[in-house]
Amino acid sequence: MGRTSWLPVAATSPFSLANIPFGIISSATSPLRRPATVIGTHVLDLKVFAERNGFAGLEAIQPHLHVFSSTSLNAFAQLGRPIHSKVRTYLQNVLSEDTAHPTVLRDNAALRNASILPLNTITTHLPMEIGDYTDFFAGIHHASTVGSLFRGPANALQPNYKHLPVAYHSRASSVVVSGTPVRRPWGQILLDPTANPKIPTFAPCRRLDIELELGAFIATPNPLGQPVPVAEAEAAIFGYVLMNDWSARDLQTWEYVPLGPFNAKNFATTISPWVVLPDALEPFAAKGVENDVEVLPYLRGENKQYDIRLKVDLTPAGEGAVPTTVSETSARNLLWSFPQMVAHHTIAGCNMRAGDLLGSGTISGEGERERGSLLEQNGGGKRSIQLVRGAERKFLVDGDTVTITGVCGTEEEGLVGFGECTGQILEAIEKPW
Amino acid sequence: MGRTSWLPVAATSPFSLANIPFGIISSATSPLRRPATVIGTHVLDLKVFAERNGFAGLEAIQPHLHVFSSTSLNAFAQLGRPIHSKVRTYLQNVLSEDTAHPTVLRDNAALRNASILPLNTITTHLPMEIGDYTDFFAGIHHASTVGSLFRGPANALQPNYKHLPVAYHSRASSVVVSGTPVRRPWGQILLDPTANPKIPTFAPCRRLDIELELGAFIATPNPLGQPVPVAEAEAAIFGYVLMNDWSARDLQTWEYVPLGPFNAKNFATTISPWVVLPDALEPFAAKGVENDVEVLPYLRGENKQYDIRLKVDLTPAGEGAVPTTVSETSARNLLWSFPQMVAHHTIAGCNMRAGDLLGSGTISGEGERERGSLLEQNGGGKRSIQLVRGAERKFLVDGDTVTITGVCGTEEEGLVGFGECTGQILEAIEKPW
Repeated sequence: MGRTSWLPVAATSPFSLANIPFGIISSATSPLRRPATVIGTHVLDLKVFAERNGFAGLEAIQPHLHVFSSTSLNAFAQLGRPIHSKVRTYLQNVLSEDTAHPTVLRDNAALRNASILPLNTITTHLPMEIGDYTDFFAGIHHASTVGSLFRGPANALQPNYKHLPVAYHSRASSVVVSGTPVRRPWGQILLDPTANPKIPTFAPCRRLDIELELGAFIATPNPLGQPVPVAEAEAAIFGYVLMNDWSARDLQTWEYVPLGPFNAKNFATTISPWVVLPDALEPFAAKGVENDVEVLPYLRGENKQYDIRLKVDLTPAGEGAVPTTVSETSARNLLWSFPQMVAHHTIAGCNMRAGDLLGSGTISGEGERERGSLLEQNGGGKRSIQLVRGAERKFLVDGDTVTITGVCGTEEEGLVGFGECTGQILEAIEKPW
Repeated sequence: MGRTSWLPVAATSPFSLANIPFGIISSATSPLRRPATVIGTHVLDLKVFAERNGFAGLEAIQPHLHVFSSTSLNAFAQLGRPIHSKVRTYLQNVLSEDTAHPTVLRDNAALRNASILPLNTITTHLPMEIGDYTDFFAGIHHASTVGSLFRGPANALQPNYKHLPVAYHSRASSVVVSGTPVRRPWGQILLDPTANPKIPTFAPCRRLDIELELGAFIATPNPLGQPVPVAEAEAAIFGYVLMNDWSARDLQTWEYVPLGPFNAKNFATTISPWVVLPDALEPFAAKGVENDVEVLPYLRGENKQYDIRLKVDLTPAGEGAVPTTVSETSARNLLWSFPQMVAHHTIAGCNMRAGDLLGSGTISGEGERERGSLLEQNGGGKRSIQLVRGAERKFLVDGDTVTITGVCGTEEEGLVGFGECTGQILEAIEKPW
């Protein structure tokens, strides 16, 4: 049995006392963006908490209290993992029934009233100012299935795939927080790939897809020209979020040669609002997919992943519509660990900054219903996916809502999860011109 | 004959009164980063100038004077083109011999002493805080030559090339200002492409290359989901810089399938320090390369370029070494205008922010010595390039300095140029592990 909080926490809440993730909130009474943590159905406003001496019992944070007045978590992230651990442990203590600091909050009605807000009264925002966003391709079952669709089973994986964590730079400006609607993009589509010459059509995307991913935020910068060794890379990670890297497959097919995906990916990427610390996920560490080639020394290290139970629900528009779970899998299904990704990203000298975002790439299991994109489920647009109540989908239609959740642990010990990473598809704008 | 300044401006200076570019400087006496303009061999510190009432004669800037206390040009850029034009025109007036505001600066020794500094006593910094950096591929002669090397002349250009401005997201964190040394990157290299299985080697890059580009900074943001029409895109551009997009060709060949270049490009991109406004380049507008396919309506518009005389000099290490001009061409050699690039970049809904950087892609002319990368000049690593005094190069060796310059106009009317975009190659670090 895990520790219990003096705040009510349902057994099914992903925000048990074992979690203590960090986010950025605002509220009707105070529109200023500020850091917070969440427990059960309440948030603790860390700006108010810090200003009113809530951290009095934690010596280590005293020189850094200003980070809780920031409008993003970047300053907090830059303090480094040892401080994050201390802050999380202290907050767990303050919020637990048997707290060693009862007068700080539990028995302090004035501070409770000022700093604790119901979760359903606040707005969450992007937790970090994202400098650069890099998307990896470490989901080997996804890479195999999609590669097989494009190039046949014999060439499903490119020769480099098992030697380096393949990645591309993606777009930071269009990363949005869960709940932000996603506008169906317009773009160039090649309707007849066999035509000669190939003439694209201009139309709203017809193959709008999802990508189920795990995202990691960087805490500790490295200087330009100085690679981060794989053994030190784990300490550079601030925490994790769920991610839906929305993808326009028809735009992608036409545009991506020879330099990679561009408009097919840069119209929106949704992340969950609460950054879950590595400390909270540590009990759920698990071995990832084994690499059967010998990798170069700078990438050697265990493929440590987290056994996060991931779920993708699709809900059509309309009153009374019910969700269909279209995918369920584990975040273990990755060939490369995030520390390996950081080591590779910096090996040529690239500098990382606090707030940089790394995506895992689409996470798919091996089974039919474990696939993290619709493209994989529908066999490249050939088959329909059955939804409850008789509806079916190949790709997303306007009004569809896609919700990703991810959770670790048991109700007995207290769940550690991310909350929702959700977005609804809005119809394309009127023809732009 | 152009207007002359009461400050000395050599006829050969790229910073004539006809230019008035903007940058960020610091100095030994004041290490604070602050905006400045440059004329001849002097800079005008715009923070001091603004604080001491130098802009008294310009009504339009009065509500915005705080932008000159910023450590980047982002806030100034966001004011929009009409304000930039007024500020530039006002500064031209204040700095000209026949100024209508003689008491502001020309005849004001105190302000002159406080705000005018010799160019050789200041340090230039990145002019903008770069949100996202996108690199296009609009240099058609480069794309043809490189495509031909990789895929043969029949497939030199991909079918999409003339229908859309091909681009990829690149790395913002490693964009550095001219003068910053560039460390030779380590990376994975496939020494024998015919071997089976393909096993990469870990080594310092052996095919270190340059890419001669023009960069554009965005001034005016667009909201997510709202494309910028091509006719409005020119107004969204703040100004231009020269760019050297250093490239590790051997890393690139192995890593770039299927998602595009990554570590081969993210170790450094050098830009010139002074942002030249579109107003200053307008007299040198010229037609770019004609597109022989009919493009979609959202991309229609003239292919307006600037006839900037670009030059790439390579200087080996060592005392008394002399530069060899390895390339001379014009910035006209692009298939797509920057407004077309912006229109395409935003057509699926991607939002641009002030300070976003767009690279043109490598600019090459059609002639042998007009090629903007060494890869093109050496025929894919086959031929050596002759340097003066008997040296030769295929790719860059440690100690080499590459300097790009770009200039428009005549000495009679006053040159409009960018100054230098330069960087020296440092040897790779000791084997990282």
